[in-house]
Amino acid sequence: MFDVIAFDADDTLWHTEPLYRDAEQKYLQALAAVGVTAEQALAVLHRVEVENLPAFGYGIRGFTLSMIEAAAEASAGRISAETLAGLVQTGREMTTEAVSLLDGVEETLRGLAGRNLWVITKGDVLDQESKIRRSGLAPYFQHAEIVIDKTPQIYAGLLEKYQLDPQRFLMVGNSLRSDINPVLSLGAHAVYVPYPLTWAHESADLPADTTRYYEIANLSQLPGLLEKIEARA
Amino acid sequence: MFDVIAFDADDTLWHTEPLYRDAEQKYLQALAAVGVTAEQALAVLHRVEVENLPAFGYGIRGFTLSMIEAAAEASAGRISAETLAGLVQTGREMTTEAVSLLDGVEETLRGLAGRNLWVITKGDVLDQESKIRRSGLAPYFQHAEIVIDKTPQIYAGLLEKYQLDPQRFLMVGNSLRSDINPVLSLGAHAVYVPYPLTWAHESADLPADTTRYYEIANLSQLPGLLEKIEARA
Repeated sequence: MFDVIAFDADDTLWHTEPLYRDAEQKYLQALAAVGVTAEQALAVLHRVEVENLPAFGYGIRGFTLSMIEAAAEASAGRISAETLAGLVQTGREMTTEAVSLLDGVEETLRGLAGRNLWVITKGDVLDQESKIRRSGLAPYFQHAEIVIDKTPQIYAGLLEKYQLDPQRFLMVGNSLRSDINPVLSLGAHAVYVPYPLTWAHESADLPADTTRYYEIANLSQLPGLLEKIEARA
Repeated sequence: MFDVIAFDADDTLWHTEPLYRDAEQKYLQALAAVGVTAEQALAVLHRVEVENLPAFGYGIRGFTLSMIEAAAEASAGRISAETLAGLVQTGREMTTEAVSLLDGVEETLRGLAGRNLWVITKGDVLDQESKIRRSGLAPYFQHAEIVIDKTPQIYAGLLEKYQLDPQRFLMVGNSLRSDINPVLSLGAHAVYVPYPLTWAHESADLPADTTRYYEIANLSQLPGLLEKIEARA
């Protein structure tokens, strides 16, 4: 029934958010050392991150620039240049951190061999190509699409470009905002696999119409779910 | 004769290097204010930029991170957090700077209508997609390919992916290192259009074998050159 089963990557196939939270800890420590509370420091960081999305986009580089800018602001300039250069180092280390797969991912993808599996991920091409390569999962996918954002327009563009029928397109991911809602709005199917940590910017309410919406707790439940959906069709 | 005529974008279709040089001036001013000479400041910046390429890649974000790191190092930590945050602001302004076309570009592309014209550019997808859109040149191109680097392997991958015969592939660009040499090494054709400013990292010697190598002073000479090459074939 499905022509394409597409997977989000960050926090759907491999752990990503913990990497950002670890970096955030270093940011918080740096600010604590100059007397800024975690609450103040996080409020500034979260605002600056979202403000910087249009200019710097998703990914490690934009996040690192935001940490630096937020650290200067939250400390009212009391943070040292050396500490800020240390945050650049933190960002650089993030780019080579081992890619850690979520439980059950590899078995699930292996079990779906023969299906047309895609990765659709947003962020730095540099980050994402590197992670796809380092994850060892590339052989399971027919196609990887790295997009600058996951809006309904961008998904619609992909469906158009590859001449895909929305009703035969399924997206699997951990972000209601990026993986689920835009796809449902186009009449395609979406499987939500919540991840314990989610960046506030990625959270959203479900749309009123949840036809073609499914939720599973773990990716290993996907083959069973597909069987059920396809039996019903 | 040519199935694809591909153009580099930065400093081939539109001015880019001046944008980086302007940002560099702000970096130099910031360091001059804490007593660091331009020579010292540039030596550190150029080293840090190249060191950061594997982690941060080409583009505005990586460059901005490198300016921050280099400023901290070159000043031995004497530069203020406020000044470093100002460099983040400089990077952010670069992302929305007007795209200024080189002389003759639009007429040349219009004159080549009907040919299969591509853009092949390296760097941030975010930067490059935005510049292709803002340049107004998108309608002239059948295809845009944004790559993380321009190595012989990456060009070979493109030729393979799109099943192109190197002998019927022509690349036009201003970088010997990125646009000309890798393409010549694969047996394809290359047209070098020097740009007055070139980042040291992009300069290179021509290979010994310059069969299929051409040089023009301005893009407007390309249609005449194509006529000559194709008449000869």
